[in-house]
Amino acid sequence: MGRWEPDARGRLEQAALALYGERGYEQTTVAEIAARAGLTERTFFRHFADKREVLFAGSGALRDLIVSTLASSPDSAAPIEAVATALQAAGAVLQERREYAQQRQSVIAANAELRERELIKLASWAAALSDTLRRRGVTEPAASLAAEAGIAVFRIAFERWINESTGNDLPHLIRDSLDELKAVTAGK
Amino acid sequence: MGRWEPDARGRLEQAALALYGERGYEQTTVAEIAARAGLTERTFFRHFADKREVLFAGSGALRDLIVSTLASSPDSAAPIEAVATALQAAGAVLQERREYAQQRQSVIAANAELRERELIKLASWAAALSDTLRRRGVTEPAASLAAEAGIAVFRIAFERWINESTGNDLPHLIRDSLDELKAVTAGK
Repeated sequence: MGRWEPDARGRLEQAALALYGERGYEQTTVAEIAARAGLTERTFFRHFADKREVLFAGSGALRDLIVSTLASSPDSAAPIEAVATALQAAGAVLQERREYAQQRQSVIAANAELRERELIKLASWAAALSDTLRRRGVTEPAASLAAEAGIAVFRIAFERWINESTGNDLPHLIRDSLDELKAVTAGK
Repeated sequence: MGRWEPDARGRLEQAALALYGERGYEQTTVAEIAARAGLTERTFFRHFADKREVLFAGSGALRDLIVSTLASSPDSAAPIEAVATALQAAGAVLQERREYAQQRQSVIAANAELRERELIKLASWAAALSDTLRRRGVTEPAASLAAEAGIAVFRIAFERWINESTGNDLPHLIRDSLDELKAVTAGK
């Protein structure tokens, strides 16, 4: 009790994901996650509010990365290009955890409540992107449109990355997806 | 009891919206909505699953309108143009109920659960649009990108329509918003 647990957080994440995959998200309890990780429930609740938030623990850090990348992009960059570059930075982080991301996504796809939570996560990223663009002097509605269009580009690239085994990495697929959006909006 | 109530559904919608505006969504009960409409709780539950769904009762019909408009657009229309035209059809319906739409939106904006439900509604519209485009032979990722970009265009037009008093009608603002998206994705 109270002693330092090396990477308790990471072990809890791995245990939760393994159990969600084996027996389903609904059927898994916090007690089981803690037991699988060799930790107590109390330790679990020091790190996560509930079993759902285990799956969204990294999303705040990714949002911060996206915002800081966007905030530091050159003033000369067009908003949609700066947004895509910021989302590619998140893509590069996810690329390093592809297997985890795939397992996580299959858990989320199987549960309506988790799919809703994922929508909310992406909406919060869009809001953070448009806020950052406005702070950079981009006016409305361009700021919101660039942010929302960027998130659409990201979502579609992410789905392809999860479902395909083309070997394309996520940052690359984000760039492809932006190029496709440009063709689509040009009426092609 | 059991007798026919002329436009019970409409009266319940109006009563619910009035009460949500007056005392807040959380504080309003189904019993109060029914009483305000001069109806019974039993009649309420014949029309709506719960007090939240009163606010989303029309969204299925709007989605059907969007899908049927898209499905009947000429084959020669570019996907993004056909999507925008379909969303303009929904916009024309909303334009006829502008005051109701404004009241509804201020209730939704004040409550996190309702904002989430609204996100889910728009995600279901995007899924319906991309399904319809695929049935028309549009390949992926163009179908999903046109659908998601269309919903982004709609959202931003809708927000302007709700918040501004420029007198522009919603179908017009949807067209403007699409033009802005075209400029944004062209890197302007």
